[in-house]
Amino acid sequence: METYSLSRRAVAEALGTGLLVATVVGSGVMAETLTKDTALALLGNTLPTGAILVVLITILSPISGAHFNPAVTLVFALKREMSARDGVCYVGAQIVGGVLGTIVAHAMFALPLLEASTKVRTGGGQWLAEGVATFGLVATIVAGIRFQRTAVPWLVGLYITAAYWFTASTSFANPAVAISRAFTNTFSGIRPTDLPGFIIAELCGALVGMALIGWLLRADETKPQLAQEAIL
Amino acid sequence: METYSLSRRAVAEALGTGLLVATVVGSGVMAETLTKDTALALLGNTLPTGAILVVLITILSPISGAHFNPAVTLVFALKREMSARDGVCYVGAQIVGGVLGTIVAHAMFALPLLEASTKVRTGGGQWLAEGVATFGLVATIVAGIRFQRTAVPWLVGLYITAAYWFTASTSFANPAVAISRAFTNTFSGIRPTDLPGFIIAELCGALVGMALIGWLLRADETKPQLAQEAIL
Amino acid sequence: METYSLSRRAVAEALGTGLLVATVVGSGVMAETLTKDTALALLGNTLPTGAILVVLITILSPISGAHFNPAVTLVFALKREMSARDGVCYVGAQIVGGVLGTIVAHAMFALPLLEASTKVRTGGGQWLAEGVATFGLVATIVAGIRFQRTAVPWLVGLYITAAYWFTASTSFANPAVAISRAFTNTFSGIRPTDLPGFIIAELCGALVGMALIGWLLRADETKPQLAQEAIL
Amino acid sequence: METYSLSRRAVAEALGTGLLVATVVGSGVMAETLTKDTALALLGNTLPTGAILVVLITILSPISGAHFNPAVTLVFALKREMSARDGVCYVGAQIVGGVLGTIVAHAMFALPLLEASTKVRTGGGQWLAEGVATFGLVATIVAGIRFQRTAVPWLVGLYITAAYWFTASTSFANPAVAISRAFTNTFSGIRPTDLPGFIIAELCGALVGMALIGWLLRADETKPQLAQEAIL
Repeated sequence: METYSLSRRAVAEALGTGLLVATVVGSGVMAETLTKDTALALLGNTLPTGAILVVLITILSPISGAHFNPAVTLVFALKREMSARDGVCYVGAQIVGGVLGTIVAHAMFALPLLEASTKVRTGGGQWLAEGVATFGLVATIVAGIRFQRTAVPWLVGLYITAAYWFTASTSFANPAVAISRAFTNTFSGIRPTDLPGFIIAELCGALVGMALIGWLLRADETKPQLAQEAIL
Repeated sequence: METYSLSRRAVAEALGTGLLVATVVGSGVMAETLTKDTALALLGNTLPTGAILVVLITILSPISGAHFNPAVTLVFALKREMSARDGVCYVGAQIVGGVLGTIVAHAMFALPLLEASTKVRTGGGQWLAEGVATFGLVATIVAGIRFQRTAVPWLVGLYITAAYWFTASTSFANPAVAISRAFTNTFSGIRPTDLPGFIIAELCGALVGMALIGWLLRADETKPQLAQEAIL
Repeated sequence: METYSLSRRAVAEALGTGLLVATVVGSGVMAETLTKDTALALLGNTLPTGAILVVLITILSPISGAHFNPAVTLVFALKREMSARDGVCYVGAQIVGGVLGTIVAHAMFALPLLEASTKVRTGGGQWLAEGVATFGLVATIVAGIRFQRTAVPWLVGLYITAAYWFTASTSFANPAVAISRAFTNTFSGIRPTDLPGFIIAELCGALVGMALIGWLLRADETKPQLAQEAIL
Repeated sequence: METYSLSRRAVAEALGTGLLVATVVGSGVMAETLTKDTALALLGNTLPTGAILVVLITILSPISGAHFNPAVTLVFALKREMSARDGVCYVGAQIVGGVLGTIVAHAMFALPLLEASTKVRTGGGQWLAEGVATFGLVATIVAGIRFQRTAVPWLVGLYITAAYWFTASTSFANPAVAISRAFTNTFSGIRPTDLPGFIIAELCGALVGMALIGWLLRADETKPQLAQEAIL
């Protein structure tokens, strides 16, 4: 197993989150420019996002773990699989990288480099959707790593492909990406004032996912464990 | 090989069926909200369903086998790969989980939590379609487990992706999902009175699939086996 | 390695070709029923076909090799990897299975079980397209088996997904499927009188593909081989 | 490890680039013929391109490495993984093969065999987009080969699927393909006078990608390596 310095891991997190956000924002601009059908625009936003996730997680997870997501970093820190210090660096890199991704997308499409979104995304349904979306993402990652580590890039790409459509919020499921999307007034944007609701819902969903999957994955190989389970 | 308690396996079945139904119902609502083109809406219903199946089967099959479907549980029980008691628990968990999935989807999209569908799905063509759909699903699962177990999540996801389009019924192929879809009056719903026809057709298709694939898979390595085959 | 009796292998070829044709014809009917946009209809025809090919080849190739296609069977017979007798049985099973697939698709969609197509598909561009399509299919299969056998179901599914769009004929690339599609007067049909042109073009493409890939795959491990190459 | 003569490797590069270009050009013609919705046309251009890349790289990389792209060949030559002489042959084969691909696509669709595109693709946003697109492609290939060689065909196919949408230029990311697309006055064309800007941007993106990923991939297993790094 190779190890990488924190500086390399942080750059990997920034690069991955940046390319992810550039894909979300850029494909949203491309899609809404080319069609008036919103379902088709969402499809043109979904497929690139799912595809790039498979790529980015495959090529960067050997370096940094390829979180690209403060909610995921929080779960790994709580599971004591990374230090608090590294976790803080990761989250910082994700946010910086994500905002740079928005800037690059805007520059490619000749838009103002940063703008505040006016897209309203709020209310109980949206918050529940973000909670469900992040719950499922964390379940996918934690169980995927446990049972079939090499499939995780595919599982995350496919999960997000589905979650774009089955959640009412199109599944941000990622506080760093949400913050980065507040700076684009295009298809994929979110009004800055709606960020706190999204981020809180995402973190709650992540914690519930971590708890439920943690319970589910406790295999019962021996009788004593079965006894333990009864206590739960 | 790890083993999991029946309670964990039942929760896995409920969780998997619930997320599957939430995806079918939720993506149907999203799709019909965003477009007037029904083919595009079906595509927006198909891709998330196929994608989430790959994810759910990969992460939950090591725990419960990831049936999420009473027709599949019936096949495994008839093949004596699980006890009747466990089979009954599985089917109960699938139905409860599925209906919860409908409720969660409705809550995310701010719809009444449960409503009866008015969508007519009946007639010989539809029943044949459900029979063919479940026949193919069972053939895919049984032969897939035999020849390439790790590919089964992909095979099921791809099979359902195809069956959404090539069957006249959009391939429910699952009694628990059919029941759950009777409680949504949206794109993916089915009128409760049409359930019996669908469920009977699905179970018949499953049994035919089990029989035909059972015959096909009997390899002829030795003469005695060939003799045995003649008796059948 | 298990071996299967010729009767089982023929049933596998018939079943596979039948489900393939049912998918092509059925998804074509579904698509043209749901939308007026022909590109969207073709997409609704393409994705199910690509997906079912991955499934059918994975689950049936251990039994029969999963040709489902007389052009492919011809290549294997010419390469002396199967006997002429078996080849004839395979082709017969493929055609019978394919036509049954059309019948099942029609029955599901409550159409007349068999009808003659009136869809004109003829001319030099179409024939070249079928030649190119089958050339590429044979190259994919022969080189895929050589370099990464387990990936072949995916390669064929992806190749056909692409060929639906990049060839002017939407890539039939399969004489048995072409014959079966002459019996449906729907989206995927072909006028019976246009069959000979398609079939001849497909067989020519297959032979060219076999020859070119045969040459390409001859590795040059030793000097004498290099000398041989100069002669070619 | 088998080795192939330079003539076979050059034919593999020409064949692969030719089929890639035939797919890009042909599916573009098919798509714009079938729909008036530009997003749908782009989707009908994207999916076949991504799919054929997986196929072509899988079946031809054991022969030639499956570059199909002068920017990729440049990177391998700079990394001293191939000789300059072979690199020049590769680039020549890619350009000749690519233009033949345009000719074949035109012949299939009964268009003039070669025509000059009038499609304007120029300006800072487009150039930045080509730079970003090729940067990401090189990062995907170099890191993919390092961490999961067998996944590279999939990674490239998925990367291009995403890049079609998230870059403002629809991601040519390939000088040989760009030159070939200058000869078609259809959906995927590019005005010949716009070629230099695209090609320069692609080569710059490739070099930046090679440098950044080169730095990222340097694992820090031992102190001496860290010292070496400081020198760079």
